[in-house]
Amino acid sequence: MRIEILCTGDEVLTGATVNTNFSHISQKLGDVGLEVLWGTTVGDDRETLLRAFRLASERVDAVIVNGGLGPTVDDLSQEIAAKAAGVELVFQEQWYTRMEEFFRRRSRVMPASNRKQAMLPAGAELLDNPIGTACGFALDIGKARFFFTPGVPRELHRMLEEQIIPRLLARSGKPAASLLKRFHSYGIGESRADTMLAGVEALAPAGSVKLGFRAHYPQLETKLTVRGADMEDARGKLAPVEQEVRKRLGNFVLAEDDQKLEGVVLDALAARGASLAVVETFTGGALAARIAPLPGAESVFRRGIVVRNLAQAYAAVGLSGSAPATGEVTVETAEAVAQAALRHIAATHALAVLIELDEGVDRIEFGGTLFIAIATERETVSRRARMLGGREWVRLGAVEMSLDCLRRYLQGLPVDERVDFEKV
Amino acid sequence: MRIEILCTGDEVLTGATVNTNFSHISQKLGDVGLEVLWGTTVGDDRETLLRAFRLASERVDAVIVNGGLGPTVDDLSQEIAAKAAGVELVFQEQWYTRMEEFFRRRSRVMPASNRKQAMLPAGAELLDNPIGTACGFALDIGKARFFFTPGVPRELHRMLEEQIIPRLLARSGKPAASLLKRFHSYGIGESRADTMLAGVEALAPAGSVKLGFRAHYPQLETKLTVRGADMEDARGKLAPVEQEVRKRLGNFVLAEDDQKLEGVVLDALAARGASLAVVETFTGGALAARIAPLPGAESVFRRGIVVRNLAQAYAAVGLSGSAPATGEVTVETAEAVAQAALRHIAATHALAVLIELDEGVDRIEFGGTLFIAIATERETVSRRARMLGGREWVRLGAVEMSLDCLRRYLQGLPVDERVDFEKV
Repeated sequence: MRIEILCTGDEVLTGATVNTNFSHISQKLGDVGLEVLWGTTVGDDRETLLRAFRLASERVDAVIVNGGLGPTVDDLSQEIAAKAAGVELVFQEQWYTRMEEFFRRRSRVMPASNRKQAMLPAGAELLDNPIGTACGFALDIGKARFFFTPGVPRELHRMLEEQIIPRLLARSGKPAASLLKRFHSYGIGESRADTMLAGVEALAPAGSVKLGFRAHYPQLETKLTVRGADMEDARGKLAPVEQEVRKRLGNFVLAEDDQKLEGVVLDALAARGASLAVVETFTGGALAARIAPLPGAESVFRRGIVVRNLAQAYAAVGLSGSAPATGEVTVETAEAVAQAALRHIAATHALAVLIELDEGVDRIEFGGTLFIAIATERETVSRRARMLGGREWVRLGAVEMSLDCLRRYLQGLPVDERVDFEKV
Repeated sequence: MRIEILCTGDEVLTGATVNTNFSHISQKLGDVGLEVLWGTTVGDDRETLLRAFRLASERVDAVIVNGGLGPTVDDLSQEIAAKAAGVELVFQEQWYTRMEEFFRRRSRVMPASNRKQAMLPAGAELLDNPIGTACGFALDIGKARFFFTPGVPRELHRMLEEQIIPRLLARSGKPAASLLKRFHSYGIGESRADTMLAGVEALAPAGSVKLGFRAHYPQLETKLTVRGADMEDARGKLAPVEQEVRKRLGNFVLAEDDQKLEGVVLDALAARGASLAVVETFTGGALAARIAPLPGAESVFRRGIVVRNLAQAYAAVGLSGSAPATGEVTVETAEAVAQAALRHIAATHALAVLIELDEGVDRIEFGGTLFIAIATERETVSRRARMLGGREWVRLGAVEMSLDCLRRYLQGLPVDERVDFEKV
């Protein structure tokens, strides 16, 4: 089945808004094995909208139109859809009542302009929007089935998932049940992961499981897409592949599915009634900002200390003696800072991340040396790593590696396993 | 002049990469008064590429094609461009030499596959790429002029600015010189700014200066686009409008052009040889992360303290007595924490941001109350503000308002001027 995504709206066309709706739709379709052939972006203009609808109707079998369902005069999707299909706009009592209810529940009066949102092309199939006033709908224009969706991301996401993808799968004649399994890792690049996982797809019946990757530095996402007659069938096909991927990626798997690294760390700390102190230098608060704001962190995150030089780090954790000069920092320095932070802040776990940046201007070969230490009452572990790639790259990598070291420590795994992003 | 942006590449079509190149191109063209009519996205596929090129050539006067100029087999732009234009690919000695030089300067040997990047359609006009091996080029296909650009953002940005926009302006018959003036503000919404600035365009000759906005919460960008016969003419036309906008937006202007709020704050502190201590609660390190990592911050940013509860804040700054219970925090509490931080950390300026979050689950009506204080040896100033909009919205607003309070204090402006985003 050939699919087009047709995004409308001056905000998107002029670049005022980055078009994340397009990438979201395309990714979600790809996750269930539906391929997008064409993308079109046009503004809130009758003539170009009509042209775009007609071109799409000749080119593909299904079109997802995004935007233009709002109550204002520049929202034109229903009007142009009706024109392109050669039908009238009709008042949808059913949706009007839903909107009235929507406003009533919020103790607000519905503005008269919202009536427009209940005018849909004759013969349109309603697509429910349980969290907004923009009514989705499906309609044939030429030989293609058009699916009209709201521009508000959370409304789009839900309508796509619940209303549109099942209809597309049914039309495509593909097995209706599909599952997406995701593994998140830090420390292996896409090509190495590809090699490590060679052949895993063969553990399921031919063609039923597809392996894919999505690299977003510093993390890598490994995806398994499964198709089956029903969910049970899909889960059955996935199981042996899922198990094998988990085994081969091993210690590098930091989270699965909707889990996040910081959530895994927070949960592991909370589960043992632990508390955390963090000392960071060049990461400048970015490390604390991953954990401290999370719901539930109030009982775990004790204190973060952000400094730009080592003397300040020593002072902040009550460490006596003078701090080593630039170029003389070692993992022992980080260990001493972590141990002092543990005592000073009275936490059960302390994480210290000291970074020595290279001299000179920022450039792609610019690097830094990381000294990471984790202290508890029982022991102190540490690692050193060298990273290149410019200031921002080093900062991102340092935050990720530090959190992942803590995750590894809490899970009883080695903290100093070599990662692909460090230089020896 | 009708313009189309044609983005190519499976990465973009499948949504693996969010298409920021599209919004960048469209914005930059809009900034000089060139309007984009149509956007197309297709993958690395010969048939759809050819179809997309042909459709664009019939639809518009100028097409900016992005991507597909790399050395690998899935980079097809030159090949399909030649086919669409009905010409051969020819070897460009000139560009080949440039590439060899590019590799030699980096002490690397050029892979054989790069030769492909020197094969351009016959009759193509070269568009220089001083920072990469992908050669840009312009070519007529049908009645439209096509401009081919690399997918690597920094290479695209430079080629667009230096090579393509001047050519488009020349073809459009518009005055060649254009200027963009930007004001950044926090605290006024787009519609209020629009009202505040009503009529400013009339201070320049009719149609020569255009006013526009770009809202990206929590900041608002106010843009003035000017056209002139040459740069001097454009600057002359801009001057009275620029002055008036600066006057009317007044205290709300936090930075201009490429300046950023955190940079303005850092510069103001550095200029008076000051040092800064920051204490933050719910913002969780996000406030420190705006300043601490900046180049030059090492001499200014003394220490950041990130906590989740007030007792920890008291302990971290050596404040005796017991911290107020939830619901009993006042601006005086924030003032006491800022004053104690000033003494404890021995900085010249201390910023304390305490936030009391509402109870309950995160939702759009979820809010928080901010208590912001700035202490120096001479005085302490503070403000209270109430914000709604969900956890993340409150956090973003709190970071911005805190930094802006510090900016205002350093510039001798009132820190408690009412902003549009606070609820009374």
